[in-house]
Amino acid sequence: MDPTLPKGYRYAGTACGIKPSGSTDLTLIVADQACIAAGVYTQNVVRASSIDWNQQVTPGDQVRAIVVNSGNANACTGEPGIRNTAEMAKLTAAALDGPDSVTPEQVLVLSTGVIGVQLPMDKIQAGIAGAASQLENDWSSFTHAIDGIRTTDKDRKFATHSLVLGEQAFQLAGMAKGAGMIGPRMATMLSVIVTDFPLAAEQAQHALTMAVDQSFNRISVEGHTSTNDAVILLCRNPQGTEDVCPESVASFGSALTQMCIELAKLIPADGEGATHLIEVQVQGTADDMEADRIARTVGASNLVKTAITGADPNWGRIVSAIGILDVDVVSTEISLTINGHAVFRNGEPLAFDASVVSQSMREQFETQLQLVVGKGQGRATHWTSDLTVDYVKFNSEYTT
Amino acid sequence: MDPTLPKGYRYAGTACGIKPSGSTDLTLIVADQACIAAGVYTQNVVRASSIDWNQQVTPGDQVRAIVVNSGNANACTGEPGIRNTAEMAKLTAAALDGPDSVTPEQVLVLSTGVIGVQLPMDKIQAGIAGAASQLENDWSSFTHAIDGIRTTDKDRKFATHSLVLGEQAFQLAGMAKGAGMIGPRMATMLSVIVTDFPLAAEQAQHALTMAVDQSFNRISVEGHTSTNDAVILLCRNPQGTEDVCPESVASFGSALTQMCIELAKLIPADGEGATHLIEVQVQGTADDMEADRIARTVGASNLVKTAITGADPNWGRIVSAIGILDVDVVSTEISLTINGHAVFRNGEPLAFDASVVSQSMREQFETQLQLVVGKGQGRATHWTSDLTVDYVKFNSEYTT
Repeated sequence: MDPTLPKGYRYAGTACGIKPSGSTDLTLIVADQACIAAGVYTQNVVRASSIDWNQQVTPGDQVRAIVVNSGNANACTGEPGIRNTAEMAKLTAAALDGPDSVTPEQVLVLSTGVIGVQLPMDKIQAGIAGAASQLENDWSSFTHAIDGIRTTDKDRKFATHSLVLGEQAFQLAGMAKGAGMIGPRMATMLSVIVTDFPLAAEQAQHALTMAVDQSFNRISVEGHTSTNDAVILLCRNPQGTEDVCPESVASFGSALTQMCIELAKLIPADGEGATHLIEVQVQGTADDMEADRIARTVGASNLVKTAITGADPNWGRIVSAIGILDVDVVSTEISLTINGHAVFRNGEPLAFDASVVSQSMREQFETQLQLVVGKGQGRATHWTSDLTVDYVKFNSEYTT
Repeated sequence: MDPTLPKGYRYAGTACGIKPSGSTDLTLIVADQACIAAGVYTQNVVRASSIDWNQQVTPGDQVRAIVVNSGNANACTGEPGIRNTAEMAKLTAAALDGPDSVTPEQVLVLSTGVIGVQLPMDKIQAGIAGAASQLENDWSSFTHAIDGIRTTDKDRKFATHSLVLGEQAFQLAGMAKGAGMIGPRMATMLSVIVTDFPLAAEQAQHALTMAVDQSFNRISVEGHTSTNDAVILLCRNPQGTEDVCPESVASFGSALTQMCIELAKLIPADGEGATHLIEVQVQGTADDMEADRIARTVGASNLVKTAITGADPNWGRIVSAIGILDVDVVSTEISLTINGHAVFRNGEPLAFDASVVSQSMREQFETQLQLVVGKGQGRATHWTSDLTVDYVKFNSEYTT
């Protein structure tokens, strides 16, 4: 049975010819009424003009649509790129014009794909018109919308969640795309989450920021922060609805965080060429931020990644990666387990059956590294991909 | 003709069976008289006991020998590892005992190779004795000594330099090893430089620190700081020699820096699987440190590395890598040339013939990226390897 979608939104995805492959490359997500929108965006100083556009709109309470194109990031495209972002919003508003008029300022714009090439606006215009005529609130349309945001993703990335509070049920549905330029600072890719839960704009922004911090902000593929990363949350406008109690908002926040973690993990799991999802757990630091720095650094090491590619329980590479950072760690307090097997304790190697650990790494898609680095209360988890021959082939053969 | 070596040192390299391949794996470098020694070491908190040992000795003026083993890093080996480091110094002192007695505290110890395995001390003992019987001040012995410090290096890495000051000539001779775990903080590998130039210990330490900051500290392969990195400088003891004027010391410092840069560049050039040496020049920042951070980050990006592997002038990956950092850069002030070809200026792409730039990247071993990121006076250069299928194969098939 198809997952249940939240009420109040319609979706479409179409192929308008931006991608030479002819795949779906333009998505519309439309709210039936003005809705709440929150956003978290890339912190790269080199960023697309669509990010600047969206930052003017979110958090906000009058959003009607999101237009997304894949195959072209419209980044590093100068003044023409800025004009084209505004034009995409304008074309979308025009295509949606009906009983309720939509203005360009009610449209969020997302672009992803190659950097430094001007958008083919004639194709975009046709794509927006085509998608606008196909909008539906059904699972098939939702999957077309997912396809329209994909670039090098092998798989469709989505998650849905139902939240029952008393006698009311709310739905969350999210989509995401990877699979390269997945980097370390803030929202790292595109993701759109829609819900019929009612929240004020500032509440929505707070819930999304918290959720992203625990999810999209904890993943990497190669640590290269993208120019176009964005996570958008659309919620029902609470005006005219019954009051939402703080406990319900908190429950929604938890559900949103769990869904964001689920979506976020799909990205390194489908990282370019990836054969393993790597989960790095770190505990024992003075605070969570220090644990996050260590987890991120261990996950970023090409030597750690390639060891896991080769199903090699090479704990020396993992333990030494901690010290890439200037961290307050004593080497005799470092312990490591790989997939639950203790291999290093309090600074000294343990006798272990390397073939058993290696077998678990070969047979499981997910490799779990648990590092204890001291006696503090800090902890963090980071998810990343391994590094394979296919990653290198893909990225050295992919041309501008 | 063989390069001229400095007076006062003898060298030997021998195979004692640490490496399963049977290659040379033990090196002795012996000073005829107590000499000055300076050292710069890894800042990894997870470091080998040999690093701790050497930090007790340098800077110092009573050093007589360096013993190096390759094939085993003696890192993460706990208390037995600490004892074995001291034992290597003791065995070396005993093997050199002659008219002038040598104490263990006059011996520096370097180890490189696999992490977490105890040293085979019986083989080490035989190796030290064998090497001690073969010490010579000739080029052939120097090359054997280079071989004894190699691990995954394809090539011997050395540089020599003559410094003529007035009527006096001084020699510098250096060796280095890479080729993996080449990382971002301080001395990144093993290197030993010997010279007959006379310097006090503090002068030697200052000159070496300055030189390393401009050379070994500016390279990376995969950014993984090693547990055993060390650069050692041996100089003649100035006691009993004519005074050395400050100008001569400065000239020596410049020569040392140039030689360290030459040695340092050999390491990413021979990085595991490397098909390109990448030189990243950054200018226009507020200070040199900021330029260094950017150059290092651009050089660390797997997307930049793989683009260069594929001879792809993919400037979008290069420009966007700047923003991985939280840097004070305005995107409209960013310009880039690749191998002298301008491809991006003041935040906008330039029309350029991609096939011409690609051809230069394919035909030249060295790819030069010149980034201007603002109007400041800061500048820095960083050297790194590209990322190839062979790097991944090598590191995912190499077992603990």
